[in-house]
Amino acid sequence: MRKLDTCFSPALYEAENHKSSIVVVIDILRATSAICTAFHNGASSIIPVGDAEEAKAYKLKGYLVAAERDGYILDFADFGNSPFNFTPQRVSGKTIVYSTTNGTGIIGLASSAYAIAIGSFLNIAALTSWLKTQEHDVVLFCAGWKNRFNIEDTVCAGAIADVLMKTGLYITICDSTKAALDIWSLAKDDPRAYIEKAAQRTRLKEKGLDDCIDFCMTPDFTEMIPVVRNGILVNLNTNER
Amino acid sequence: MRKLDTCFSPALYEAENHKSSIVVVIDILRATSAICTAFHNGASSIIPVGDAEEAKAYKLKGYLVAAERDGYILDFADFGNSPFNFTPQRVSGKTIVYSTTNGTGIIGLASSAYAIAIGSFLNIAALTSWLKTQEHDVVLFCAGWKNRFNIEDTVCAGAIADVLMKTGLYITICDSTKAALDIWSLAKDDPRAYIEKAAQRTRLKEKGLDDCIDFCMTPDFTEMIPVVRNGILVNLNTNER
Repeated sequence: MRKLDTCFSPALYEAENHKSSIVVVIDILRATSAICTAFHNGASSIIPVGDAEEAKAYKLKGYLVAAERDGYILDFADFGNSPFNFTPQRVSGKTIVYSTTNGTGIIGLASSAYAIAIGSFLNIAALTSWLKTQEHDVVLFCAGWKNRFNIEDTVCAGAIADVLMKTGLYITICDSTKAALDIWSLAKDDPRAYIEKAAQRTRLKEKGLDDCIDFCMTPDFTEMIPVVRNGILVNLNTNER
Repeated sequence: MRKLDTCFSPALYEAENHKSSIVVVIDILRATSAICTAFHNGASSIIPVGDAEEAKAYKLKGYLVAAERDGYILDFADFGNSPFNFTPQRVSGKTIVYSTTNGTGIIGLASSAYAIAIGSFLNIAALTSWLKTQEHDVVLFCAGWKNRFNIEDTVCAGAIADVLMKTGLYITICDSTKAALDIWSLAKDDPRAYIEKAAQRTRLKEKGLDDCIDFCMTPDFTEMIPVVRNGILVNLNTNER
């Protein structure tokens, strides 16, 4: 049986224990939703960078750069972190350099894992269908917010865990997974209403950045499965699934 | 209004943000349940030590020492971590040196806080009644297990948060508190059954150490409110409440 673990914060990630695992990075408001949308709209690859300075250096080299901190677009960037920014007109056929407050940094933290995939409500069916075909343990790695636990990524982790556990292919002895499943059991009838209590929902509203939340909570908007290859995000080819 | 925060793991504790807060340390299986029991049975004080070597040094000086790692009594110690060890015969009038896998170490982590109190189901009414009289923010600090989130401390944190939030004296913008409250909403009809899913419950069972779980889940066994004074645990005097 494969193991299913959940990690609620970068500060809790146990890299040593997950070298043979597929790590699913979850930062639904808004990084991983934006990444799924970018590939859906034709982006060819995304270079995740944790550091704003690194993003700026790419900009000076002529790259298209999406970069934000605490929801605000960094001044040198082409656009910020809303999925709505990643339009086909802007991203189709392009390589995008992408740096966010929480989501992109943790891709680096998970770099010693067997594989890294990007998870969100937008690609939950495609992602879980692919995971089922992979003979590997899975870690649901919630980005949280500045190392804190957050509600919205936990809800999404619970939704993914629910699908995976129902396959009968996974076991979990992980209290975080069990808690995420229970949070999902409370949220699943109306996940959009449930996350109204999330602090990030309030932060985005205060900044007028909450227009994308309904979209980010849409299940199965896309078949894209962004994965990391040599440090760069690409969409998993259909023939690899 | 006072703020209510919850911290799910020592790795997530934000000492800088909690200097004016009362930190409630929660490690119900078994450290904080054992500490409440020790005072109930007449212990005069408890010296919490994080380090086994330090505990051993106290033993050599003639102190009564309770010390365990992963549930097992350390060889030099007088007894281990079960609340049932802290009998009136053993502890009445005594100072006990106490070192455990998770619980006692985090008392040191919280040392910059305004105050530190010990929480468990055993003293939940007394503890929350006292907190209500204190004009301070509160942090519910779950010991977790080796830096991991755990179910049983989250359930207890949710139970304490539920009492505090119902007073109308506290606000919370903390996703961890909201998640703990929701976990408690699922657990409250039968907390003992709910924590059957906890990994620590399985660990204790495998080691034959689960005889104390029913006891540890007993609400309001005692009126004791252990607090830290100059690094040492004492029971809060009635005239301070």
